[in-house]
Amino acid sequence: MGIPKILILGAGYGGLMTAVRLEKILNYNEAEVTLVNKHEYHYFTTWLHEPAAGTKDPDKCRVGLDQILDMNKTQFIKGTVTSIDKEAQKVTLENGEDLSYDYLVIGLGSEPETFGIEGLRNHAFSISNINAVREIREHIEYNFARYNQEKSSDLVTIVVGGAGFTGVEFVGELTDRIPELCKEFDVDPSVVKIYSVEAAPTVLPGFDPELVNYAMEVLTRKGVTFKINTPIKECTPEGVVLADGEAIKSNTVVWTGGVRGNAIIEQAGFETMRGRVKVDEFLHAPGHDNVFVVGDGALIINEEINRPYPPTAQIAIQQGNNLGDNIVATIRGAKLTPFKPSLKGTVASLGKGEAIGLVGSKKIFGTTAAIMKKVVDNRSLFLIGGLSLVMKKAKL
Amino acid sequence: MGIPKILILGAGYGGLMTAVRLEKILNYNEAEVTLVNKHEYHYFTTWLHEPAAGTKDPDKCRVGLDQILDMNKTQFIKGTVTSIDKEAQKVTLENGEDLSYDYLVIGLGSEPETFGIEGLRNHAFSISNINAVREIREHIEYNFARYNQEKSSDLVTIVVGGAGFTGVEFVGELTDRIPELCKEFDVDPSVVKIYSVEAAPTVLPGFDPELVNYAMEVLTRKGVTFKINTPIKECTPEGVVLADGEAIKSNTVVWTGGVRGNAIIEQAGFETMRGRVKVDEFLHAPGHDNVFVVGDGALIINEEINRPYPPTAQIAIQQGNNLGDNIVATIRGAKLTPFKPSLKGTVASLGKGEAIGLVGSKKIFGTTAAIMKKVVDNRSLFLIGGLSLVMKKAKL
Repeated sequence: MGIPKILILGAGYGGLMTAVRLEKILNYNEAEVTLVNKHEYHYFTTWLHEPAAGTKDPDKCRVGLDQILDMNKTQFIKGTVTSIDKEAQKVTLENGEDLSYDYLVIGLGSEPETFGIEGLRNHAFSISNINAVREIREHIEYNFARYNQEKSSDLVTIVVGGAGFTGVEFVGELTDRIPELCKEFDVDPSVVKIYSVEAAPTVLPGFDPELVNYAMEVLTRKGVTFKINTPIKECTPEGVVLADGEAIKSNTVVWTGGVRGNAIIEQAGFETMRGRVKVDEFLHAPGHDNVFVVGDGALIINEEINRPYPPTAQIAIQQGNNLGDNIVATIRGAKLTPFKPSLKGTVASLGKGEAIGLVGSKKIFGTTAAIMKKVVDNRSLFLIGGLSLVMKKAKL
Repeated sequence: MGIPKILILGAGYGGLMTAVRLEKILNYNEAEVTLVNKHEYHYFTTWLHEPAAGTKDPDKCRVGLDQILDMNKTQFIKGTVTSIDKEAQKVTLENGEDLSYDYLVIGLGSEPETFGIEGLRNHAFSISNINAVREIREHIEYNFARYNQEKSSDLVTIVVGGAGFTGVEFVGELTDRIPELCKEFDVDPSVVKIYSVEAAPTVLPGFDPELVNYAMEVLTRKGVTFKINTPIKECTPEGVVLADGEAIKSNTVVWTGGVRGNAIIEQAGFETMRGRVKVDEFLHAPGHDNVFVVGDGALIINEEINRPYPPTAQIAIQQGNNLGDNIVATIRGAKLTPFKPSLKGTVASLGKGEAIGLVGSKKIFGTTAAIMKKVVDNRSLFLIGGLSLVMKKAKL
């Protein structure tokens, strides 16, 4: 029989945290742990709006997995998962390799949810990984460089679709970056336009209205034009067409309007809602005691408001921690601990020195919130990689 | 009548140097000097291959005209010349403004000579000014950023058409820049290709064969693929087709194969050869005692070899100096001094720490030549802007 094989798919917050926890508590030769990931590094998804805008070095938003994990304890395979066969208990990689498992942890993250909006998939960028954000940054810079050659304002018009968390944080960074770009490329700041387009009746839907107003005020002052209550009808190579008929000509459309679980989960035959699996209190995929889902692919209902918890890094990290314990408990035949999210609060950055947030039930604004944002970000570094990761990547 | 009006078109090496010289030797109220230029700055054309490759900050390759000239002595107009009417003695700008003159200095530089190669004008970049080289740099970076998303090797294949001075210096810089780009964007260096394509039977036509061999050896070792004796037949959005039928797929084609004088000179009715005016020994346009041409637009025959001098910064600076003196002599009714180029030697950079050159009749290579290249570059700074410009922009 040999020792049980634990296979973790994805080194995002959920999968990586599971691996970290397993390294800590598994005894020698108690199980064989394999982690599969597309890249040799973990990236800090919640920070990606910064390198996308060009306000932070992308290398500061990732860390080599060998810096976090002990590669003698966790076997690492660089590869892309193409399918999961839950009956045969095996996973197939893009290179054709098959991996079998006794316990499977699915932490495959999310993909953009386009809500069927035509053209979005082909003509819009999304802030989804290191490669994607480097492309967005370079695309914006290239278009600024072209401006003096071609003088088309489409080149310096940026449309951000979706004014949720990521969308708002991204336009915040853009307002800091634009003046630098204008200086670097001799572009008159008055020709540059940033649009934040949101289908819902408010930006940051679900946030406290006082915080929302503050955010809109700050960002409007910094030069953002909001189009609220205005769905995007179509995205074309020339820009976007809004539901009210207005066309915004833009060479740079970035879609932040939502995510759904990785399509591989659905293709494997798990029951999903928007690609997410409604897991039980132990993060089991329904009907599968040896398959767990963490992070953006896991759907958990917040009973207080009868709505799903939003997919956040905070919850994914907590899930990974809990799941490491529960897999070891399962192997040892011990009692499992139900997972319960513990919400510490939320802070949204609005660019340098400005943010809004809710810590417990306390609303915070401006400098206080901006400092708190760094504390939150550095705390997640600590949870994943301890003090050594904080030393390397902390926001100061 | 008033005092004579001297109008200088263009603040390149020739035009700017004329203005600098006039400021030095004109007496108060002896003439009114006006300089028209597209930009508020002068740029160091001979350095542009560096910011184009991304190895130097473009801002290090330009200097504000107000840093060089005394704007109380020289009236500066930011504008683009659209036509010269030599009969009416006036110059028209893009904004419709007319400027009259008693003495005209044409220093309007060059434009790419495409030799009728199809598609070159639309699908190739040229290393021609600050805006253009920023676009080239950003285009290359953007394509490297796209590589991991699209995996097409066209994105990281760069074709440099023409292996004259600029072409060779540019591929030299690229060989230094590529490893940095590969690191920044996680691109495997083995997929990147740099082609240097030259129609003539040798790179650096006209250079000493020993120096040419050294240059090819160095650049080949650094990863450049040479296609010598191979004209480009066509440039398309997909790359280039060579005369021998080979197609090189590339998203980045940079044309350095030659220049011709600014078309405005020809359009004004001056007799030209490849857009250049065969000036007399006082830099007069033939038949016009009050019109002078300097820099890339002026054609002077080197009697020793019965071929035109190549258009270089060195000669343009010497012309500006001579012309300043001669315009003042003309105004004062004094005797003019014939212009005679004084060739100090030539050094071509092959990237960091490598160069080749001829100083007098002495051939230099490697580190010695690389050091000499910096000396030459810093010397031209000194000639244009004195020690203060050397302090600001010197190559160290």
